[in-house]
Amino acid sequence: MLKTAVLGAGYMGSAITFPLADNGIEVNLWGTWLDDSLVEPLIKGCPHPKLKQPLEKTINLYYWQDLQPALEDVQVIFIAIASEGFVNIFEKMLGHLDSKKDYYFFKLTKGFVEYEGKIMRATEAAFDMFARKFPGKDFNIASVGGPVRAMDLSNRTPSASMYGISNERIKAISENFSTDYYRIFTTNDIPGVELCSAFKNIYAMAAGVCDGLYKGQKEGLYHNMVAFLFNQACTEISQVVFSAGGEKQTAFGLAGVGDLHVTSVAGRNRRYGEMVGKGMEGEAAFKKMYSEGEYGEGYIALKLAVPWLEQAHPCILEKLPLLKALNNIIFHKSGPWAEFKELIKKLGF
Amino acid sequence: MLKTAVLGAGYMGSAITFPLADNGIEVNLWGTWLDDSLVEPLIKGCPHPKLKQPLEKTINLYYWQDLQPALEDVQVIFIAIASEGFVNIFEKMLGHLDSKKDYYFFKLTKGFVEYEGKIMRATEAAFDMFARKFPGKDFNIASVGGPVRAMDLSNRTPSASMYGISNERIKAISENFSTDYYRIFTTNDIPGVELCSAFKNIYAMAAGVCDGLYKGQKEGLYHNMVAFLFNQACTEISQVVFSAGGEKQTAFGLAGVGDLHVTSVAGRNRRYGEMVGKGMEGEAAFKKMYSEGEYGEGYIALKLAVPWLEQAHPCILEKLPLLKALNNIIFHKSGPWAEFKELIKKLGF
Repeated sequence: MLKTAVLGAGYMGSAITFPLADNGIEVNLWGTWLDDSLVEPLIKGCPHPKLKQPLEKTINLYYWQDLQPALEDVQVIFIAIASEGFVNIFEKMLGHLDSKKDYYFFKLTKGFVEYEGKIMRATEAAFDMFARKFPGKDFNIASVGGPVRAMDLSNRTPSASMYGISNERIKAISENFSTDYYRIFTTNDIPGVELCSAFKNIYAMAAGVCDGLYKGQKEGLYHNMVAFLFNQACTEISQVVFSAGGEKQTAFGLAGVGDLHVTSVAGRNRRYGEMVGKGMEGEAAFKKMYSEGEYGEGYIALKLAVPWLEQAHPCILEKLPLLKALNNIIFHKSGPWAEFKELIKKLGF
Repeated sequence: MLKTAVLGAGYMGSAITFPLADNGIEVNLWGTWLDDSLVEPLIKGCPHPKLKQPLEKTINLYYWQDLQPALEDVQVIFIAIASEGFVNIFEKMLGHLDSKKDYYFFKLTKGFVEYEGKIMRATEAAFDMFARKFPGKDFNIASVGGPVRAMDLSNRTPSASMYGISNERIKAISENFSTDYYRIFTTNDIPGVELCSAFKNIYAMAAGVCDGLYKGQKEGLYHNMVAFLFNQACTEISQVVFSAGGEKQTAFGLAGVGDLHVTSVAGRNRRYGEMVGKGMEGEAAFKKMYSEGEYGEGYIALKLAVPWLEQAHPCILEKLPLLKALNNIIFHKSGPWAEFKELIKKLGF
């Protein structure tokens, strides 16, 4: 039987335990030092404080001190920690692995990481860390994309997930995770899936900004504008993916269009955008959400995406007018209304 | 100055008069025999009964008896009538045109038409009718696609519209219609735009069915499922477009993904689907809406789309499992829950 560790006991790490447990897979759920308040009630059998329901009884729970036992005899490792902690924890985790065994990594973390002074995709950093620790060894990794909200998944609502896979072996492993309600699709386009996951959080803020500008005064009368921005976001994500060596089609599939759909309608990044659309400054809105225990992933992703693009793909920024508008609004105190008006005038005739 | 006739005084025919009037274009708005109750209050200066606001004062209004004067000295003709009346009215209109003049047609009608015993795209039927009446004459037509809800447009909310154009001359004419809030994009892919417009109404019903199944019991917890279906709809629309000689990319742009977004979130087709998802039979739900003065375009489009596909593209139906599920639910009394469960199991691993 497969034995699995899930690193990170937040929304997504905890939610993925449902299809795993339903498949009879043994799961060790490990919380980081920021997750103590989540692991404690779970150990007592209480509901998960974010998902608002108990996990399956078969899940083994571990506090951050117990990373080593959480990884014992494990072949499959899900990494579901915030992008900021990714490099640190991936490195620590590698220290507990056995060079004689094969491992399969499933990365749920979204967004960019900072690694050795550079901004890069989490999978790129992971690849480098793994190769240094285990030179010459095959690195089996899947970058797991949406459209999957943790809340819905933990309610066993039918969900589809796009896995960007490094090889056929990890594809075979991932077949063990699917259930009637958790459907898995695969592609070889890891950069595509990974960039979609990061950028959909960024562009979901645009839908939120639009809500902030219009809600209340034009209720029900700005769907055209939301659809306009949604479509522009899809186009821009496909440009980013293509520039980074991925396939445009990935952006027009589940990991892109599908995940952008769910993220733009529901969730933290949309809500963050709404605060900004209503007039709050970018940093203040991030801090406000943080103080309420919610992490604005899109804000952080945008903060890293712009220098990443400037470094790695400097010519493409001109093709991303919505991204530039968001950057101006969120990091340069530009008025959202003026930015959006300017953007719209630039597009079409 | 451009002189324009708009045929059909319903939602979209009336809404398009806003950007036209704002551009100083003279507009004759003509209502069909079903539109008397719309034209009458407009003539009195009262709000449009559907759009809930008055039109611009410069709009000239015509009852159905006055098609000839409505077309006098006109170069540009917008056709915004329900698909069922399209062939009849297009034929009548041609009878009033002058063979020595050039005309530019902008087709806002969505869905399929029945013409000479065959089901076809409205533009195909129009092309044939025009060629018979004016053999050898250039046919300048644009198939106008979304994502544009009439209510939003008439409120001057920023909107983008994709025009599938037959030639550069009609592109030049359409440049006259754009405003700060009405942005026009063009493509040469007429079949693509036209099929997107028809099929997005069909697939928007799927989002509605999902609402009908879950709303109330799983409020806020079925976004994944909606996104899953949304993505499947985009994929299937792109297959249809490609089979019919259009470009897949059209389905992943404004006319496809963008329009499907606005139609799935708001409007009659989503609402129709919700009634069906709650257990009402397909035909009964259509009749109920009709009795309330609303026309279920998606229902009619699906009714014609299936025989059209069987006739013209018989091999593709197998690639459209969501379309088949909708057809089973709406026309063959199959339970929505069973159909969706079956569909989901078929997709992914």
